[in-house]
Amino acid sequence: MSTDFIETLKFNADGLIPAIVQDADSGRVLMMAWMNRTSVAKTVETGKTVFWSRSRQALWMKGETSGNVQWVKDLAFDCDGDTLLIQVEQEGAACHQGFRSCFFRSVRSGGSAVEVTESRLQDPEALYRKK
Amino acid sequence: MSTDFIETLKFNADGLIPAIVQDADSGRVLMMAWMNRTSVAKTVETGKTVFWSRSRQALWMKGETSGNVQWVKDLAFDCDGDTLLIQVEQEGAACHQGFRSCFFRSVRSGGSAVEVTESRLQDPEALYRKK
Repeated sequence: MSTDFIETLKFNADGLIPAIVQDADSGRVLMMAWMNRTSVAKTVETGKTVFWSRSRQALWMKGETSGNVQWVKDLAFDCDGDTLLIQVEQEGAACHQGFRSCFFRSVRSGGSAVEVTESRLQDPEALYRKK
Repeated sequence: MSTDFIETLKFNADGLIPAIVQDADSGRVLMMAWMNRTSVAKTVETGKTVFWSRSRQALWMKGETSGNVQWVKDLAFDCDGDTLLIQVEQEGAACHQGFRSCFFRSVRSGGSAVEVTESRLQDPEALYRKK
C-alpha cells in the first residue's frame, strides 16, 4: 500500500485520527481506536493494525499481547479525511473482554433495556495471561 | 428505547462521543459523527439520528436539509462506553458529496493508489439546493 494518502488526512489537535475496524467478511464493526501518523504508516507497512494508546501514550499493535492480530484488507478514509475505516481479518476476539466485537451491548429500536447481543468467544483472563 | 444507558456512557472533555453509523441491511459503514448527551437522547426519542456539529456548535438532525434521514434500528455502545455504533435505514446518500457512504475512497491491500470504490448516488448540489 502507498502511504502518500497519509498527507491528505486530518489529524486532530492531539495528532490523532479515529479508526473504525470492521470484519472484512461479516461486516461486523469490531472496535474503534485512535491512530497517530506513525501508527497509520506502520499499519500500512506491516499490514497489521497499529494504534496509539492515549492512556499509555504509546504505540500498540493489536494482538501483541493477546495474539488477536488484525490483518488489514482495505483502508478507507471519509470525505473529510478525518476518520479511517479499516477492513480486517480478525484473529479471535477483538474485544479485551473476550467478545468478537466491542459493541456487544445494544438497545434495540422499541426496546427498553440494554441487551448483550453476542456470546463471549474467549475467556478474557486467558487472553492476557502471561505465556 | 430507554435512555437510562446514556448515564453509563463516557463523553470526552468536550462532552462528546463518536457515533459510527452503519447501514442495517448491507453492513456498509456510512459515516462517523459526534453526539453530545442531548443528541443521544434526541436520537433515541425521535428514532432519527441527531448529531452535534462541532463547527457550528449546534444540534443537527441528519437529513434536515437533504432529506436523507437515518432511521435508527439499533444503538450499540462499546466495552469502554466511549463509542456508539448505530444501525440505520438510510434514505438516499449519507455523504454530503452524494455518495452512499462517506468512506468512498480506499487503499486496497497490495495497492499503491487511492481508489474511489463507489458510484455517486446523488448530485451533491441538488442535495442542498434550496427547495
